[in-house]
Amino acid sequence: MKTVQVDVAVVGAGTAGLAAFYAARKAGASAVIIEGGEYGTTCARVGCMPSKLLIAAADAAHAVGKAGGFGVCVDGDVRIDGRAVMDRVRRERDRFVSFVLRDVEEIPDAERIRGQACFVDDHTLAVADHTRVTSKSIIIATGSRAAYPDSFTSLGDRVITSDDVFNWHDLPKAVAVIGPGIIGLELGQALHRLGVRVAVLGRGGRVGPISDPEIRAYACVTFNEEFTLAPDARIADMQRYGDRVAIRRAGPDGSDVIEYFDYVLAATGRTPNVTGIGLDRTTLKLDAKGVPSFDPLTTRTVSADRASPIFIAGDAGNFIPLLHEATDEGRIAGENAARFALGRQVKPGLRRARIGVVFTDPQIGIVGGGLHAMKPGSFATGQVSFEDQGRSRILLRNKGLLNVYGDLASGRFVGAEMLAPAAEHLAHLLAWALQNEMTVAQMLEMPVYHPVIEEGLRTGLRDLDVKLRAARVNVDKAA
Amino acid sequence: MKTVQVDVAVVGAGTAGLAAFYAARKAGASAVIIEGGEYGTTCARVGCMPSKLLIAAADAAHAVGKAGGFGVCVDGDVRIDGRAVMDRVRRERDRFVSFVLRDVEEIPDAERIRGQACFVDDHTLAVADHTRVTSKSIIIATGSRAAYPDSFTSLGDRVITSDDVFNWHDLPKAVAVIGPGIIGLELGQALHRLGVRVAVLGRGGRVGPISDPEIRAYACVTFNEEFTLAPDARIADMQRYGDRVAIRRAGPDGSDVIEYFDYVLAATGRTPNVTGIGLDRTTLKLDAKGVPSFDPLTTRTVSADRASPIFIAGDAGNFIPLLHEATDEGRIAGENAARFALGRQVKPGLRRARIGVVFTDPQIGIVGGGLHAMKPGSFATGQVSFEDQGRSRILLRNKGLLNVYGDLASGRFVGAEMLAPAAEHLAHLLAWALQNEMTVAQMLEMPVYHPVIEEGLRTGLRDLDVKLRAARVNVDKAA
Repeated sequence: MKTVQVDVAVVGAGTAGLAAFYAARKAGASAVIIEGGEYGTTCARVGCMPSKLLIAAADAAHAVGKAGGFGVCVDGDVRIDGRAVMDRVRRERDRFVSFVLRDVEEIPDAERIRGQACFVDDHTLAVADHTRVTSKSIIIATGSRAAYPDSFTSLGDRVITSDDVFNWHDLPKAVAVIGPGIIGLELGQALHRLGVRVAVLGRGGRVGPISDPEIRAYACVTFNEEFTLAPDARIADMQRYGDRVAIRRAGPDGSDVIEYFDYVLAATGRTPNVTGIGLDRTTLKLDAKGVPSFDPLTTRTVSADRASPIFIAGDAGNFIPLLHEATDEGRIAGENAARFALGRQVKPGLRRARIGVVFTDPQIGIVGGGLHAMKPGSFATGQVSFEDQGRSRILLRNKGLLNVYGDLASGRFVGAEMLAPAAEHLAHLLAWALQNEMTVAQMLEMPVYHPVIEEGLRTGLRDLDVKLRAARVNVDKAA
Repeated sequence: MKTVQVDVAVVGAGTAGLAAFYAARKAGASAVIIEGGEYGTTCARVGCMPSKLLIAAADAAHAVGKAGGFGVCVDGDVRIDGRAVMDRVRRERDRFVSFVLRDVEEIPDAERIRGQACFVDDHTLAVADHTRVTSKSIIIATGSRAAYPDSFTSLGDRVITSDDVFNWHDLPKAVAVIGPGIIGLELGQALHRLGVRVAVLGRGGRVGPISDPEIRAYACVTFNEEFTLAPDARIADMQRYGDRVAIRRAGPDGSDVIEYFDYVLAATGRTPNVTGIGLDRTTLKLDAKGVPSFDPLTTRTVSADRASPIFIAGDAGNFIPLLHEATDEGRIAGENAARFALGRQVKPGLRRARIGVVFTDPQIGIVGGGLHAMKPGSFATGQVSFEDQGRSRILLRNKGLLNVYGDLASGRFVGAEMLAPAAEHLAHLLAWALQNEMTVAQMLEMPVYHPVIEEGLRTGLRDLDVKLRAARVNVDKAA
């Protein structure tokens, strides 16, 4: 067995791991990066990129269908060439993956170790059966994987996850998507627009990351105008019949509905890869799911003696499983692991204002944790509907509802939830305003061009401004 | 002749005039608003709104053409139904106009005067031959009109302006657009995408509002991949032949090229409506074009005794002829005219960070006056190409070049020019950052989601940040 001694060992060469490795080296530490699976990130292989590619094809099909409304007539059939659609998805996906592989290849061989890493103790990792790494600090960046309940396994190869979709060579006829989370909504709507019969079925009523009941109800109605979305589907059972799956669930009138699908796409969440890596041999404090507790500002885990040499970043930490957060966490972990290894003080890193986008159409946007993060009674809500918003109507995209939240005491903008056209862009404008700690009044002093979708946002902010001012008058009167 | 005596008289009931009228009344002044033409704003009747409607149809046609690249096959003909296209443009345009008319109708009759207003002196207006308005202060909000050189008149009814386009009931076969300004580029590309043979011809090399030669050159090449754009066309002559116009110009090899068009669309600029309103009977200082000089912060004009009771707002002032600026100027003019009339001090109003968008594809975005507004030697330039930008490529919209400018002394972001996908949204993010006086380093601390077009902007900001830091190191070394 080979032995390696370094300042920082990074377990996992995905987005967070690579960011951590580069940051640790840049901070002057010696480092190795260990990967037990394929190189390439979740984002590039099975996440952000291939899903956006599938959505781009779906939106292209949708645009063709809408063209008639503008006077652009398609006098023949519109045919979704499933093989061509999936070919572009895989080809462009492979290209994105190749960029990651190229970056990895540039890391000197001596600093890259292939094999499954397992903790021996807080400072030692065994990699497969060939290498023993002793390290002053260790970064866990093992990522996450798609997960579904054991009961699904009875469906055999008819149950798939998002990972499988992007390896398709053609489109199936009918897919039941279980779980209307981010992935379920994105893939469900995209497959529907590509001509696949789709039902997106959930339990408990959740719709993506939306926590505001007004936005959720609006989203549910809007999506149902296009495809079946039952956030609380009350599935009685799922049975395999030949190459298909029958799903029995309670219909609207109480009687049972049985529908057949080619596949059950389990979009039931992702689970951090923290089992089987020997965390029980460390002194780390684990939560109920077996994930090490850690400080999001420093990414340092919590050990029995509170002097943990172990850091965690990205999906493995189960904190905010998003690419840009994984990059930030990776960098913070790398810098702090290096500091720790070199005998310096661990420091809080830059955490940015929270932003979430779901690439449905209309898109979902969440800023600052949304309603869920608000303290009841501390805020006012401004609202705008996009149904009559000028530019949105011009574009035949006038579907949307946006709630903006303002802090009663300070007048500051504190968050938003929306189903809206161009939500990805509105969310950036709002997230930057949030991080700049802007008041709603200050935001209304900012320029807004004409005619743009941002004018809808301004209408919502004006509504919020009126409510914040009214609340202040009431406080003044009471005083 | 009827006589009317008020605090504030507003001449013109367009965007600026209406904003001024409402603001003056809100500030406690008595006011009248005088309109000599049709009610309805330039924006709604012949500007922002109908042009965006035409562009929406054009982009729908373009999207159908691009769908094959995603695997979405149109197996028949794509037919532009010119009558349906123009029907939607006019119908939706009329709807936008109706909102303006509804607002105007809500103004009490006593406060609305119909007829051409003409100054008698600094405090007096004659309206047609029926009313004499004496007013403590007056606001000029007479707008602008499309204008072209006298030489064009020989083409008779074959020369048209943007005003005419939006009254079409069908699309013509071939149009020469003279003037690659904002309107010329928008309408030229839109008509091209709707199947009209188009040549956009200019003089002197200007391309829209772009002042950065790198962005201009890139835009010129990009547009020419789609349609003829000759910013310096060296037109030898334009002659009418029957129902068509022959344009003779120097071809690429020096020999003459003659091309025939159904119409010459004169997009040669707009001229402020300041002639024929009796400005010579006021004490106002006029510029070479006959436009009153004024302070953009207060909108107050300059009179011989420097105590002018006359304010000016919107296109009439020829300052920044954009809807959102006209609204701001109108409000400032209304507030200040009311203050003046009521014996209070005139105050500077809120002027926002400058933002300009041209709704071509890719769009043009200008923030903070662009390169043109920069002091040579005071700034560094960061650049990003969108040709390899992840999300843009996913969407098959990977065409674009963006330059961001940073102040060498302060490290602040000071402006940008771009031809870019989603430039309208990037420009808002940048314009808000500009008004917030953010440094480039601060902007890089802001959240950016993944995968989004804003990541391209971030790449440009990183490039700028490196250059600003390098310049600072050099300064430090020299010191």
